[in-house]
Amino acid sequence: MSGTFYGLGVGPGDPELITLKAWRLISQVPVIAYPAANGNDSLARSIAAPFIPEDVIELAIDVPMRHERAPAQEAYDAAAQAIARHLDQGRDVAFLCEGDPLFYGSFAYLLTRLAQTYLTQVVPGISSITACAAAINRPLAARNDILKVLPGTLDASRLKQEIISSDAIAIMKVGQHFDKIRGVLNELDLAGQAIIIERATLDDEKVTRLADVPEGERPYFSTILIYKGGESW
Amino acid sequence: MSGTFYGLGVGPGDPELITLKAWRLISQVPVIAYPAANGNDSLARSIAAPFIPEDVIELAIDVPMRHERAPAQEAYDAAAQAIARHLDQGRDVAFLCEGDPLFYGSFAYLLTRLAQTYLTQVVPGISSITACAAAINRPLAARNDILKVLPGTLDASRLKQEIISSDAIAIMKVGQHFDKIRGVLNELDLAGQAIIIERATLDDEKVTRLADVPEGERPYFSTILIYKGGESW
Repeated sequence: MSGTFYGLGVGPGDPELITLKAWRLISQVPVIAYPAANGNDSLARSIAAPFIPEDVIELAIDVPMRHERAPAQEAYDAAAQAIARHLDQGRDVAFLCEGDPLFYGSFAYLLTRLAQTYLTQVVPGISSITACAAAINRPLAARNDILKVLPGTLDASRLKQEIISSDAIAIMKVGQHFDKIRGVLNELDLAGQAIIIERATLDDEKVTRLADVPEGERPYFSTILIYKGGESW
Repeated sequence: MSGTFYGLGVGPGDPELITLKAWRLISQVPVIAYPAANGNDSLARSIAAPFIPEDVIELAIDVPMRHERAPAQEAYDAAAQAIARHLDQGRDVAFLCEGDPLFYGSFAYLLTRLAQTYLTQVVPGISSITACAAAINRPLAARNDILKVLPGTLDASRLKQEIISSDAIAIMKVGQHFDKIRGVLNELDLAGQAIIIERATLDDEKVTRLADVPEGERPYFSTILIYKGGESW
């Protein structure tokens, strides 16, 4: 009997935002795996740390944060093999994922390599965008809104076109694209409604109105939320 | 000292998908409120039921599921006043929300009426769309995808235009709009990639490929997920 492969969402950062189900599985499975990009500490592991038993087998998965495709594919192949070795021995493996496993995470690369061979179960987690909305006490979307989740990598004209035709917007992967995004939001006169959330739910969470970000400063690892509605509740 | 107003996400249905934080607050607050539309049982309450203490004050909030604006506004005013009476007495009130409080929920109407007067804290919950993705073991979105959450109420041409220009799509509020949505997805040759999820994470969860829904049948209370990517992992 092979083990079960679990993708566990551990939420955006606050360990209390782990679900009861993920908490239970973390305390039960014999093998806990997590991404540890380029030798850095794993955020997913640090979120779950209060609940990880001492005698568990830990598997740090080297998931490169590179843009080139080939080395990443090789790393995912190796990661899947490392996990499969435990599953083949009948040991359940829980892969810890920041936020939600299926919402912009590296878990998808493992899912596609393992789910056809092994029983696979995903436990959804609190996504970064709902955590960001909670940080600012503002609806992410409501009623019949169109909500778009846009990567900051889009070019300015596409970004503009998608933002114009939506009611609520979350821009992810802001990082080096911040100046371009700010330019677009200024053009659309939406900078006053845009809020940047960094490290939501962590102790050093930072919330800034886009209009208050000094020229030249570029918030990294952040999400920008824009909500056009809410004027007539 | 006024009490604190909590918006607690209780997730999509499985009580184990409640977060540790919501679970703790449910066991601590003296007043638990929840929407009970038109006298029906409250799904939010039933999700949290295993954790609601016996001696708590319960406040069933009549939130009409009507389309007319005026009666709904009056109902929300009355609901906010009922909650405020407890807050004024120094009692914390937790309002239970299906899924996430700020993701297409009626909580937004209470937030806008209470958050300026009372300390308000939102505890994010598992949203229906991440729960639906978990139900089908498929990414909701990944890498640099554009993800759109679209209400089924959109007219066919707008729906078509938004679907064409996205990588991943969640269509909410399907109900009576099912035939129109199926028509659009057939036109775009996307019906084969569309999956309908009803009552995700509940015991009677139902997952159906859109192509397998018999002519004339219209799944209600359901979400349709479409993912165009995933061919090159």
